[in-house]
Amino acid sequence: MAAAIALSQRGRGLSTPNPNVGCLIVKDGHVVGRGWTQRGGRPHAEAQALDEALDRARGATAYVTLEPCFHLSPRGPRCADRMARAGVRRVVIALRDPDPRTDGQGAAWLRQHGVAVDMGLMAGEAAAAMRGFVLRQTLGRPAVTLKLGLSLDGRIALADGSSRWITGPEARAHAHMERARHDAILVGGGTLRADAPRLDVRLLGLEDRSPRRVLLSHGDAPGGWETIAAPEDIAALPQVDHLLVEGGAQAAAAFLRADLVDRLLLYRAPILIGAGLAGVGDIGLTDLAGAHGRWRLDDERRLGNDRLEVYLRSRNA
Amino acid sequence: MAAAIALSQRGRGLSTPNPNVGCLIVKDGHVVGRGWTQRGGRPHAEAQALDEALDRARGATAYVTLEPCFHLSPRGPRCADRMARAGVRRVVIALRDPDPRTDGQGAAWLRQHGVAVDMGLMAGEAAAAMRGFVLRQTLGRPAVTLKLGLSLDGRIALADGSSRWITGPEARAHAHMERARHDAILVGGGTLRADAPRLDVRLLGLEDRSPRRVLLSHGDAPGGWETIAAPEDIAALPQVDHLLVEGGAQAAAAFLRADLVDRLLLYRAPILIGAGLAGVGDIGLTDLAGAHGRWRLDDERRLGNDRLEVYLRSRNA
Repeated sequence: MAAAIALSQRGRGLSTPNPNVGCLIVKDGHVVGRGWTQRGGRPHAEAQALDEALDRARGATAYVTLEPCFHLSPRGPRCADRMARAGVRRVVIALRDPDPRTDGQGAAWLRQHGVAVDMGLMAGEAAAAMRGFVLRQTLGRPAVTLKLGLSLDGRIALADGSSRWITGPEARAHAHMERARHDAILVGGGTLRADAPRLDVRLLGLEDRSPRRVLLSHGDAPGGWETIAAPEDIAALPQVDHLLVEGGAQAAAAFLRADLVDRLLLYRAPILIGAGLAGVGDIGLTDLAGAHGRWRLDDERRLGNDRLEVYLRSRNA
Repeated sequence: MAAAIALSQRGRGLSTPNPNVGCLIVKDGHVVGRGWTQRGGRPHAEAQALDEALDRARGATAYVTLEPCFHLSPRGPRCADRMARAGVRRVVIALRDPDPRTDGQGAAWLRQHGVAVDMGLMAGEAAAAMRGFVLRQTLGRPAVTLKLGLSLDGRIALADGSSRWITGPEARAHAHMERARHDAILVGGGTLRADAPRLDVRLLGLEDRSPRRVLLSHGDAPGGWETIAAPEDIAALPQVDHLLVEGGAQAAAAFLRADLVDRLLLYRAPILIGAGLAGVGDIGLTDLAGAHGRWRLDDERRLGNDRLEVYLRSRNA
């Protein structure tokens, strides 16, 4: 299942309007099919894996990060039915599909056709990999990641605004990879005017993965940009399940104030800046007790001289 | 030698005007004597270890973090001579004594009296443990540690100044342990007026280890405080080899501007504050290139929900 979840990450930022699912088909200890949701949502991961496995799917075990779909769609066959017809003997599912059009019916169909079904293996990890889809289903909005490139003392630029470069090439390459995994990137009006950022993916072979660009502003957007007036409007952004907020301090604060940040990406350089620009503006905090218990460290790694920390919003608080 | 260095840490913040040395005497695979420089500098580590070893020192090997002293002092015997007389067979020394009154003469005396001497084992680690003494000898000033208790976005307090608590009890206990290892703690006038900090060590059994208190100010100091007008004046502070700068942002910036910070202690809480007080004021940085290459990560650890990072100033840049 861990391998299927890793496959699912390949579709992140590409697969909307469908979830980024991963699927692995194993027969006699050999992987005979691999799939992940393709650009635009089709083919589904299961369909791709079955197409690779061909006859070897008969009697095989399939690992899939989300319950195979059962709802009728003009865009393709129902995966639960395809799996049953292909003769798959057992399907191990991480996450039950929260989409009410499937929601257990895919697993029921498989069982009715003599396929053994196990559901719940690594459900949390699978949900994290499909965070955007899950939040879209449960909260009706995309998953939001806030990225900050900081000095040790929490500055994102010198007082004159210069920020090239705080972090090194490894951290910047990682940030571009993160861009490729998001459907859209958002900045505030101040950042657009000050930096005119391209917000594209400048990684060899991934240039076509540059996300859509969204401006948080009450004014008009320049060509090639979409605009929202408030963080809450992300719910209405079509086909955006994963949104990356890249700055500046006011945009970051607006999303934090609205409690619409699910994930923090902190790229930290081993430098001190002193007087300079802060990464986060006023988030409306009035006492320190209210700040605690909201974030938990999910990942950390060294990137050249810099360090990346990933924090997730604790939703059980 | 690692054990001797660990012993040497016990004297940090206590041993001035003498260096905090550690000494271990080993005979037939057993530790027969342990010593570290005591409060006020006497007895020396070697003397304490020899007193514990008694006759077992004959034929033993001594590990000592600093070359045994050879200069005459009214306060006690010369350690190099005491070791030779005790019949120690071999002395392993980490760091040659930079004090010109010894500076190789201790080792020479030992060799002249038939004692095998090895010098240089873990010299860097020993020098780091005696950083204050080494800097006093080489630069004529104490070693300076700057401590910051920060949110993820680099704030040390809310906009109204409240900072209780950003970090949790484990981090605060660690910070008190650091206090105990310094001869003096410094704060700026703003911090004194705003927080009236006690700057004492509130750890069971270490209450008597509270360091002297120093104010960075052009004005008069309250009772129980010493005053310096500028960071450079630390050179004149009597019997201070290890100085801890605890804030606020202006005092931190003054020391950083003067390039008088050797070590950064960053206690980081997993919270976001947004608009609030920054930890470091204007350090006179005019371009980002100048900020790089000055700090390297020396240690990191988790302290409850918080994280400690220790950075050292890179002096070879």
